[in-house]
Amino acid sequence: MTQAKNLATEPREAAGIKRYDLEADVVVVGFGLAGACASLEAVAAGADTLVLERASAGGGTSAMSGGVIYMGGGTPVQKACGFDDDPEQMFKFLMAATGAEPDEAKTRLFCDESVAHYHWFLEQGIPFKHSFYPEPSRESDTDDCLVFTGGEDAWPFNEIARPAPRGHKPMVEAAAGGFLMAHMCKAAEEAGTRTEYDVLAETLVLDHEGRVTGLVARRDGQEITIRARRGVVLTSGGFVLNEEMVARHCPEVAKCSLHLSSGGDDGRGIRMGMGAGGEVMRMGAAECAIPLTPPRRMVRGVLVNRFGQRFINEDAYYGRIGQTSLFSQNGEIYFIHDNDTYELNSYEFKVDFVGETLEELERQMSLPDGALQTTIELYNRHAEAGTDPVFHKGAEFLKPLTSPPFGAIDCSTDKVMYATFTLGGLHTLPGGDVLTPDGVPISGLYAAGRTTSGIAGINYVSGVSLGDASFFGRMAGRSAAANSARGTTAQTR
Amino acid sequence: MTQAKNLATEPREAAGIKRYDLEADVVVVGFGLAGACASLEAVAAGADTLVLERASAGGGTSAMSGGVIYMGGGTPVQKACGFDDDPEQMFKFLMAATGAEPDEAKTRLFCDESVAHYHWFLEQGIPFKHSFYPEPSRESDTDDCLVFTGGEDAWPFNEIARPAPRGHKPMVEAAAGGFLMAHMCKAAEEAGTRTEYDVLAETLVLDHEGRVTGLVARRDGQEITIRARRGVVLTSGGFVLNEEMVARHCPEVAKCSLHLSSGGDDGRGIRMGMGAGGEVMRMGAAECAIPLTPPRRMVRGVLVNRFGQRFINEDAYYGRIGQTSLFSQNGEIYFIHDNDTYELNSYEFKVDFVGETLEELERQMSLPDGALQTTIELYNRHAEAGTDPVFHKGAEFLKPLTSPPFGAIDCSTDKVMYATFTLGGLHTLPGGDVLTPDGVPISGLYAAGRTTSGIAGINYVSGVSLGDASFFGRMAGRSAAANSARGTTAQTR
Repeated sequence: MTQAKNLATEPREAAGIKRYDLEADVVVVGFGLAGACASLEAVAAGADTLVLERASAGGGTSAMSGGVIYMGGGTPVQKACGFDDDPEQMFKFLMAATGAEPDEAKTRLFCDESVAHYHWFLEQGIPFKHSFYPEPSRESDTDDCLVFTGGEDAWPFNEIARPAPRGHKPMVEAAAGGFLMAHMCKAAEEAGTRTEYDVLAETLVLDHEGRVTGLVARRDGQEITIRARRGVVLTSGGFVLNEEMVARHCPEVAKCSLHLSSGGDDGRGIRMGMGAGGEVMRMGAAECAIPLTPPRRMVRGVLVNRFGQRFINEDAYYGRIGQTSLFSQNGEIYFIHDNDTYELNSYEFKVDFVGETLEELERQMSLPDGALQTTIELYNRHAEAGTDPVFHKGAEFLKPLTSPPFGAIDCSTDKVMYATFTLGGLHTLPGGDVLTPDGVPISGLYAAGRTTSGIAGINYVSGVSLGDASFFGRMAGRSAAANSARGTTAQTR
Repeated sequence: MTQAKNLATEPREAAGIKRYDLEADVVVVGFGLAGACASLEAVAAGADTLVLERASAGGGTSAMSGGVIYMGGGTPVQKACGFDDDPEQMFKFLMAATGAEPDEAKTRLFCDESVAHYHWFLEQGIPFKHSFYPEPSRESDTDDCLVFTGGEDAWPFNEIARPAPRGHKPMVEAAAGGFLMAHMCKAAEEAGTRTEYDVLAETLVLDHEGRVTGLVARRDGQEITIRARRGVVLTSGGFVLNEEMVARHCPEVAKCSLHLSSGGDDGRGIRMGMGAGGEVMRMGAAECAIPLTPPRRMVRGVLVNRFGQRFINEDAYYGRIGQTSLFSQNGEIYFIHDNDTYELNSYEFKVDFVGETLEELERQMSLPDGALQTTIELYNRHAEAGTDPVFHKGAEFLKPLTSPPFGAIDCSTDKVMYATFTLGGLHTLPGGDVLTPDGVPISGLYAAGRTTSGIAGINYVSGVSLGDASFFGRMAGRSAAANSARGTTAQTR
């Protein structure tokens, strides 16, 4: 085990550390949204708080995002835009959309406290316009706020819970992640959070009772030690950039062309937690978005798999389509249209296959004789009647495909952008405590954001990453700050 | 953490243990096939070996099995029956059938050494008849040996590797697991393995260097301590009986009616390994067999999903059909037949829906208008020509469904038996060493069988459980016995 001592996840013994280079009550690893929110709450609770960030500035992967935060249950924006929502409807939707076996306790708390969480963002100075943007699935390209981001208004969720848009984007043009993070990092520093940049956390320090009392990091190639008097909060992202972890735990991700990360999602935080005895969950799950919407008018065509069959309602949230393609259809799907839908939609994609008849298109695509034709015939027959009894696409998007020429866009993993990040991570309580396989909290260790398995469960909804990073980041920061009050670290102070 | 000290996975410190109730060079946890083979090799290497078994007799879940062991590459049985096989074909098949990202090093070794492994079984006194049994997927109901157990002769594998049957059943009538285990446990004891029954292993003992030097167990409600001078081998099964682990890691398993276990698969061995710092892999994977074959003549009908679509070649290995149903089709599938196929097949199942026409059957099944009809029309059109260009069912099973009445058997999870066990577990080297998340072996800790993530990867093949339990059980036993030679445990001896 001598060798293991030098590697990332094997924790160090506190007894072997003679001096600490840095010290704080609460040490937060990573300055993305989860880390910023954790530090804000820790400082607010009176804790001397230090954030360690591997990059030269804060923001993390959150800063690259669209800035959409999943909040609902009746926020002022929802009300102003005429959407009737309550925590129960939000809970019903999330439990249905993120399963199997989503974390009920986290989801319940997230929904019950969501309006309060919105007001907390206002208090931090984040503005939200009281406006709705009708194209779904991702952030507006205006400064409008509210969007449908999880297929709440599409089958089957429109039958499970009353549809309401819950994606809230701060009031700036287009992608708001950079704005959000610039503001939140500044707010954290102004509140009193201390920050150390270009510091790469390596492993945790445990005392003889198994409590986390600090960590070891690297700065300018030198090892430094940091003491955490109350607790360490791991908010250092997922593992989409770690090829070995991806191969072992979520191999489908390797097929995707775009791994969403600002560079830090190498699984280090997850592995540090594992090294200290933390359990991981849902390591095979990943978000996967493909660029089919917006605009939603594209969904007037038909998606088929490699057998020429439909497999989903085309108006589903595009992340749901991407996940279904990647995990259930071998990443091989095609978008079928006719001349009218093509003209209407002015696709940005190159059309890969064309035929004057469906039979010719089918042949061009090398699909078995009749496979595509029977699919489109059945779709057309129902679409003419204004229904889609098989996959339940909304009536407004139903249009028989009858005007030649017919075309197909290859939307397989090797042809279009599949944008992905991992959803698996440490098993935590709603309060952020990292749990062992026995379900016992590891004293002094907390985590939030993509370092944990969160609200998203195994199926993604846009806005949930920033939603649970911010919400459970706050919880983790509070728990770490309160840890001394429990008296469990009294001996090490 | 005081509380955690009393739970299963938190390891104990060797320094705190004053006396040991039992002691051996190698301590094996669990007396199923992996444990029996590990102990045989450890004894053969000169190690004083002790097996701890929680039940009152050996055998474990292996004794409940059909007794089929996956071996190939040109065994005497394969040769006698006229099947041409070699390690490369076996490797190609397993890599394709068990992915994504199967363990290449383990698979390579397993295939290269498979003929030698067969001869080792002969040396232990296990007889195999030189005969082939033509019905695939599971053990013969005679004393015949060789069966196709993974769809080697069905699409797509018949195009990837030269098909050969590799399921080898010991020469007894019908299920041979009981015979196999009675014999192997006896062989182990006669070779010199000591056994302690009714002993439930609880947690591992680690010394101050992080080496595994023993374990703590329970007998008659009393805690006992066991010293392992060279190593501990965990071979105590999977986690199919642990409801919490199933909910967290593999929730689909909860839908299945039959959890295959002799009672010990509560995940304890996996959790003991995790507690000592071991990484787990593929925790979301499970075997899932449904009773569609044998006999294979049943496959002359057509399987459809809840959208009335075909989704697999009906002559695929029944475990592949079960896994596809459970993980990709929401566990909702139907078997469609006409009067001729029904008469021919004398199904043991009750027919759930009947119609004089396909239209009527479709309506009875509450499928959307045209969904089933178009599927069967396309199938029939191709079947009349003797082909199945969509799903590639073998020509000998193609028969148009045209003779009324038509019927459907509901093969959903809540209607027929889905027999399942978990495939995820500890990450180990081919030699059995349990690895940390950094890929570093934990000194003195080895594992094999369903306690590990093995050859099966995420997709099952019948016979692979006994195949890799026996083969890698042997490797782990050898590694543990050789551990003193490395000198790493010298201080504790």
